[in-house]
Parts: sequence; structure tokens; C-alpha cells
Amino acid sequence: MTQRGPLNGILVVDLTRVLAGPFCTMVLADLGARIIKVEAPGNGDDARAVGPFVAGRSAYFTSLNRGKQSIALDLKSVRDRGVFERLLDSADVLVENFRPGAMQRLGYGWESLHERHPRLVMASTSGFGQTGPYAKRPAYDIVVQGMGGIMSLTGQPGGPPLRVGTSLGDIAAGLFTAIGIEAALLHRERTGEGMRVDVAMLDSQVAILENAIARYLATGEVPGPLGSRHPSITPFEALAARDAHIVVAAGNDAIFAGLCEALGCAELTRDARFASNDLRTRNHEALKTALEEILITRDAADWLDVLSAAGVPCGPIQNVQQLLADPQVASRNMLVSVDGGGDSRLRVAGNPIKLSAFEDPSHRDPAPDLDADRERILSEFGD
Amino acid sequence: MTQRGPLNGILVVDLTRVLAGPFCTMVLADLGARIIKVEAPGNGDDARAVGPFVAGRSAYFTSLNRGKQSIALDLKSVRDRGVFERLLDSADVLVENFRPGAMQRLGYGWESLHERHPRLVMASTSGFGQTGPYAKRPAYDIVVQGMGGIMSLTGQPGGPPLRVGTSLGDIAAGLFTAIGIEAALLHRERTGEGMRVDVAMLDSQVAILENAIARYLATGEVPGPLGSRHPSITPFEALAARDAHIVVAAGNDAIFAGLCEALGCAELTRDARFASNDLRTRNHEALKTALEEILITRDAADWLDVLSAAGVPCGPIQNVQQLLADPQVASRNMLVSVDGGGDSRLRVAGNPIKLSAFEDPSHRDPAPDLDADRERILSEFGD
Repeated sequence: MTQRGPLNGILVVDLTRVLAGPFCTMVLADLGARIIKVEAPGNGDDARAVGPFVAGRSAYFTSLNRGKQSIALDLKSVRDRGVFERLLDSADVLVENFRPGAMQRLGYGWESLHERHPRLVMASTSGFGQTGPYAKRPAYDIVVQGMGGIMSLTGQPGGPPLRVGTSLGDIAAGLFTAIGIEAALLHRERTGEGMRVDVAMLDSQVAILENAIARYLATGEVPGPLGSRHPSITPFEALAARDAHIVVAAGNDAIFAGLCEALGCAELTRDARFASNDLRTRNHEALKTALEEILITRDAADWLDVLSAAGVPCGPIQNVQQLLADPQVASRNMLVSVDGGGDSRLRVAGNPIKLSAFEDPSHRDPAPDLDADRERILSEFGD
Repeated sequence: MTQRGPLNGILVVDLTRVLAGPFCTMVLADLGARIIKVEAPGNGDDARAVGPFVAGRSAYFTSLNRGKQSIALDLKSVRDRGVFERLLDSADVLVENFRPGAMQRLGYGWESLHERHPRLVMASTSGFGQTGPYAKRPAYDIVVQGMGGIMSLTGQPGGPPLRVGTSLGDIAAGLFTAIGIEAALLHRERTGEGMRVDVAMLDSQVAILENAIARYLATGEVPGPLGSRHPSITPFEALAARDAHIVVAAGNDAIFAGLCEALGCAELTRDARFASNDLRTRNHEALKTALEEILITRDAADWLDVLSAAGVPCGPIQNVQQLLADPQVASRNMLVSVDGGGDSRLRVAGNPIKLSAFEDPSHRDPAPDLDADRERILSEFGD
């Protein structure tokens, strides 16, 4: 049932719902861990109700839960708690993304779990973390994107607030949680002891702001949105060719010279305004105008051929359709198939972690229907 | 020197430069791994030359390399290769982010490394991966953001192309590489065998596109930018109050009802256009207008008090200054101090992975000057 991978033999009991937690356990499943998704009886994971639907099943849910197993348990019923606790007896990891306090109310707070299951790693992903003044506040992706600074850095100067076009608030937290879980498992190899991993969506946003924090603290200037520009490298942005924009990244003087040469404007390299990266960044508007005057004479595809041949880092701005048709994406097996409902097949994003010791199958196990694996799980872990 | 953490005892030899690779090894350092940064003699990591500078040192470099050690080695000199190879004799992990092919040209391709150091995990982060038609192409963050779809999903409908305001192309790849390395180390615990981890920036973008892929493949409609809106949940966006925008996330009907109640417009819950999340999403423009008519009468802070009291997930849109002054960020130790040059101290983003078994120190070891740890490293690993 589970994929072959470096986490084979690791059993994850997964109480997570919607996105941050399920994204984390999907990454672990892709690496070979066995994920038993414990869902609320009735409707299960809220993501099951999120469209689009294919053959009556949520394609969204499938994309996050392929290769997992499902059992519906009511953690307030004595009988189901017994099943859950027997699962924990065998589990290596418990992951949950309830609001902080919920696990304690169920009687499964970290202290008591650790006492009863000393080898168990417990990972909790939440909006603001298990501690601090906002711990019990509800959070969704947009709340964390708004509070966490990324929206203040994304957009046109003076333009309306924008959301990053993927749920980066959830996904960053899911990735850091996976890193924390694996680190805790490595520690357990040496000590036999499990630990608690506590990852907040807001903290994860702080952790990925990159140079914006260094710039603000070093200069006192509050960074704002810069369109498609990089704050300190120029040109490193989208530029308009005749039919479409292209992106160009001149990471150093040599690449800038190569860019100008390829565009037939080598005189720009001798222009005092553009003599260093720092000067180019200060005079970015003038440089953009000069480059676009040339780019506008030919189509994007032509320029990309010219620039690629000259070794200038560049590329098209691809939409999702173009991306999924890109030969590199196919060659890297980044779109894999999953059985959907009935005879249907869905395609979902593949695993970006390619490992020499394991195959990277182009077909993956399906996402489970709610409670689909009850019999099997009860026969393994039931009474 | 190294921080206490679950990866104590893990030795990482780090050939990476700039961002994706150094971000990965920073995460491992924060978890307790010892990172020996092997840099080119002369200028070392290019990030050392990236501003802003504090007391003559790059604050940007510090933010990514705190807690690592540095030795300058010329991998084309026989003597330095000897030092490097003795380092590898003791290393658990080698990480590099050169263009594919560079390690082979140095004589350190995976096959030969694996033969000589069978326990070594080798991780390579690159723009397009070690395989496929684009493998040898140069890539920088903006190239991957452009090709990888995220730019097509971020912005105003019909607006200019925008870059996500952090280097998500590098950072996502760095996080997946860290996950791959730890998984490979766990596998080695059982088998004694190292493996190769190959992570591409472009693949990592595909992996984080979330619902955009499912939406496109299920419906055939190419997703585009939606401003601050969520594609399938409404209201889940930025809304204008009198003095500023706030973000609001009504993830389900009950929250929507609570939102309307708190705003004093309960009649909207009985409006046929807004009777379900699906209808609200179809009629998002009308709903936004109706909500903003009310929000515009009071300031953002007032409304956030009202909505928080009603349990509606909401928040301000904070810039970096506001974020770093946020009491939750302080409470979670997400801004830590690092010794800079001379008497200076810098503050950098903390570690978002909080672990019950280890302290989360608010002061971290400095980033090394180029070659700063040569003597110590030679005495441990030299001849």
C-alpha cells in the first residue's frame, strides 16, 4: 500500500485536516511513511468538501491525501478512544493541527501522551503556535499571509494588497513540520525518546522573509512591494517583449554584460548609470526602459533563444497549463497519476525529492474514502 | 560551537552558495547539525558581497549562515582536495548547489563519492535538477518563479507580472532538500547506506502550487491571478476598512454568519446570492462591495477587535516593522540575535521548529568570516 522510500516502517497517525497538516503528511507519505488518517465520523476532513470534484470526489482532497489510509474515529467515544490508543502504541509519529488546547481537552496533551508513549513524536501545526498571546486564535492562510509580512512585500508599489497565489501560509508550516518530525525521529534513534514538535504558521512566515528582515534591521527602511523586481539585484525582473513578458536574472556584472551583448546594446555596459549592480539597482527604471526599448521589437520566444544561447539566466512566465506541458516537468516526473473514483484517473503534483536509492513512481496509490481502511486497521491494531 | 538539537553529531560538509543551499544548511544548523562551509578562496560565498552591510559585514550573509564554520579550499589543488576528502571521510552529509555536472568535473560525482564514502548522503539543489533537457541551464529565483507558475497566480487580474516578495524559488527548494537529507539519514540508520538527494527549484514550485493544479486539470480552465482572493472560499481576502485593509477568512457558513452578525449586516446571510460558499465565490464582487460599505465606517483596529471577539479569523496586513514588533513574534522567539563584526549585534529570523527536548536560544553563534575556522578544522581533519 505505501510507497517504497526512506521512511518505510515509519507509522504516522494523522489527525490533521485541510492543508498545513495534510501537506506535511503527504510529503512523509511520498517518502514511504505509512499514514493512517484518523478522521471525524460523518464528513471527515473538511477538504473532502472542497471542489473541484471529479467523479464525485474532491480532486483537491486527492492531491493532498494520495497514498494515505483512513479510519473514522470519534475521539469522545470510549470504544474509539481504545482503537486510537492502540494505534498510538504502534505509532512513531502523531501529527495534529487542531487549535491549541484541543488535544488536552481530549486527554491527549503532550505530557500525558509522552508518559504513556515515550517513543512517540508528537507534531502540532497551528496558526500561531502552542504558546504566546495569540495561541488560541483561529488562523487561516490569508490571516497568516496578512500578518506575516509577505503581503506587504508582494505587489505593485502603491497597489492593492495581494495574496501570494498559493497557500504559502499553510505550505511553509507543513514543510517545517516535516523537517521537525524527521529531526525528532533521528534524535530518537540515539536516545529512544520522542519529543514534541510545535510549528506555527506565523513563525514559518517570519522564517521565509529572507532579505526583507536583514534590510529593515540594517537600514531602518520598511521594505515594500517592488513589482517583479529584486530588492538588490538588477536586472532581475520581468521585462516586456513584443508579445509577452520574459524574466531575466543578471546576477552579476558578467551576466549583465552578456545580456547587453546578446541584445545588441553593449553600450549600456559603458553607461555610468549601470556600471555596477548597485548603480543598476538605483537606476532600475532607466535601465528597464532601455532594455524594453529593444525587447519590444521581437517576440518573447525569439529573445529567450538568443539569451539562452548567450548563457543569460532567463525564462518565460508560464501559466499552469504551460508549466504542466513543459518537457522538463514531464522529464522530472512532476505530474503523477492517481486512481480517482470509479474508472477515473487524476493527475497531481509529484514528489520533488528525487532519491538515488528509490524509484519515483509515476502512478501513486489513491486517496482513501472516509473510513475506507477500517477493517484492515482494526484487524492490525484493534482488540 | 554548534547549537544543541536533535541533529547533534551530524556533520554536514557544505559547498553551497547564495540562497537555496545555505537556507537548507541553516535549517539543519538550527537543529544542531555541525555545518562546515567549504568556500572558494578569495571571495567565498557570493552572498558575502550582498548588502546591506553592518560593521563591514553582510547582514544578508549573516542571516543565512549564522552558526556555521568556514574553511576556504581550492578544490582544484591537490593539497586542498586532500583536506576536503578527509572531511568527507567523517561527514554524514555533503550538500552542493553547483550547476549539474560541476561536481563530476571536480571528480566528486555521486558514483565515485558513493564508492569511496558509502555512508555519505549527497544532496544537490539546482535550478532544474540533475536530469532532463534543462538540467544544465542556469537559474535564479526569478527564472523559476516565472517558469514555475506562481507568477501567473499572483497579482491583480490583468495587472503586470509580479514576483512573490521573497525568494520562494530558492526557499522552497532549500526546505525540500532538508527534508530529503533527513529522510536519507533515517534510511541510513537502518541500512548503513547513503544515498543521493536531487532537488530542483522548478520541481519544488510545481509541488507547492496546491489547488491550482487540481483546478486546472479538473476543469480545463487556466487559473489566473485573483488579487487577494482565494479561488474557492469567500470571503477570504483583504477588505478595506477606513484607514487600512484587514484580512478576513470565513472558512465556512458558520464563520460567515458570525462575520455578518459582528458587522451588523446579518441580512446578508439571508441574501440568496450569499447562501453558500459556492454562491459567495460566484458573487464575490457584490459581497465585497456590501462588506466594505460597512467596514469603511470604522478603522481597521476597531474592526479587528470586534471580529476577534466574535471568533472570526482575521488580522491586520503587517509590514516587516509591524511584524517584528508583534508580541506573538517576540513571545515565540522568532527574532534572535547574532554577534556581527566587532561589537555589533544583528537580529535575524529565529527557528520556527520548536522542540520540547531542546531550548530555543535567543542568541545564536555568529556567521563565520571566510576561512575563519581553518586551524580548528585542519587540526581535526587535516593531515
